[in-house]
Amino acid sequence: MLILGVDPGLTRCGIGVVEAGVSRRLSFIHVDVIRSDPHTSQDLRLLRIYDGICEKLDRFVPDTVSIERVFAQENRNTVLGTAQAAGMAMLAAAQRGIPVALHTPTEAKLAITGNGQAQKIQVERMVMRLLNLNTMPTPADAADALAQAICHALRPAGALQGGEREQHLTPAQRQWAEASQKANRRHGVNRGM
Amino acid sequence: MLILGVDPGLTRCGIGVVEAGVSRRLSFIHVDVIRSDPHTSQDLRLLRIYDGICEKLDRFVPDTVSIERVFAQENRNTVLGTAQAAGMAMLAAAQRGIPVALHTPTEAKLAITGNGQAQKIQVERMVMRLLNLNTMPTPADAADALAQAICHALRPAGALQGGEREQHLTPAQRQWAEASQKANRRHGVNRGM
Repeated sequence: MLILGVDPGLTRCGIGVVEAGVSRRLSFIHVDVIRSDPHTSQDLRLLRIYDGICEKLDRFVPDTVSIERVFAQENRNTVLGTAQAAGMAMLAAAQRGIPVALHTPTEAKLAITGNGQAQKIQVERMVMRLLNLNTMPTPADAADALAQAICHALRPAGALQGGEREQHLTPAQRQWAEASQKANRRHGVNRGM
Repeated sequence: MLILGVDPGLTRCGIGVVEAGVSRRLSFIHVDVIRSDPHTSQDLRLLRIYDGICEKLDRFVPDTVSIERVFAQENRNTVLGTAQAAGMAMLAAAQRGIPVALHTPTEAKLAITGNGQAQKIQVERMVMRLLNLNTMPTPADAADALAQAICHALRPAGALQGGEREQHLTPAQRQWAEASQKANRRHGVNRGM
């Protein structure tokens, strides 16, 4: 299963592609950052981000696009541009019939390190180890995009299921489900899948 | 000059098309609301809004797309979806090489009624009068989209200019320029044109 992770941003939009094989064995495929010039108009910047994402989707043809969920509470100066960049990724995926998943940073930390409050350096070390990388890709947006892809690959089974199944969750699955439900309640946004 | 106004929204995205002729004489051309089903996933909703906007742009081929500027301070439950819908309009315009203008609701009220604090009913009556309409289009998103288009047509000359010109502005132009600059400072967003 090929997963393309997106760390959305208008100035720097991280893209990370990971292959999840049997027994959740992970392979690094690709990482990049799509940039737009802050001195050009908003519409042309969005077009740049959209074209960049489309090029990646057409090159790698992922089974799922995993996008970091944007919060309205975040930095007011950048949150709208970040949400719009995430929207470009959702549109590009929907146009190709590729399912979209949205995961919060807490979900990503939890899936990768087992701790939703893990430090950034802990997450980065686990990303390196899981993907057999000698150095961590920079800038941070590239690393975060890989973390998004890994997060989707390693999410607990049943993490996106509701109802009765939640009564039979392991502690990690329950912690995940609670974080996920909390995010849904706060933002009133439907999950992409 | 044909102007397509957009009142961005994920559930209802208003579209209003106005022709601005000589002496700023205005003609009503078209009004509609593009809807997406709140029960479908975010990516498919954005695709629906994007496709709807593309269809309007290809049918009317406007000279400018005028989009209501979204504020990060607005309703947290809907602001990200609204920003993403605005992003769909910006992308669709940029893909066709159509210039984008962003105007705040205050700028629209000011351009249409001469008062940036005008009541909604005052704005609607002026929209009806300016476009020779017998009834106001509903829902509100349709009316707001027409107001966006009219706002761009009636904006004071030099409203988008900076620097020395501002020293020679009329009181209405100065009020406009101040509102516009205030919005730019608050949001750190480049104007579309």
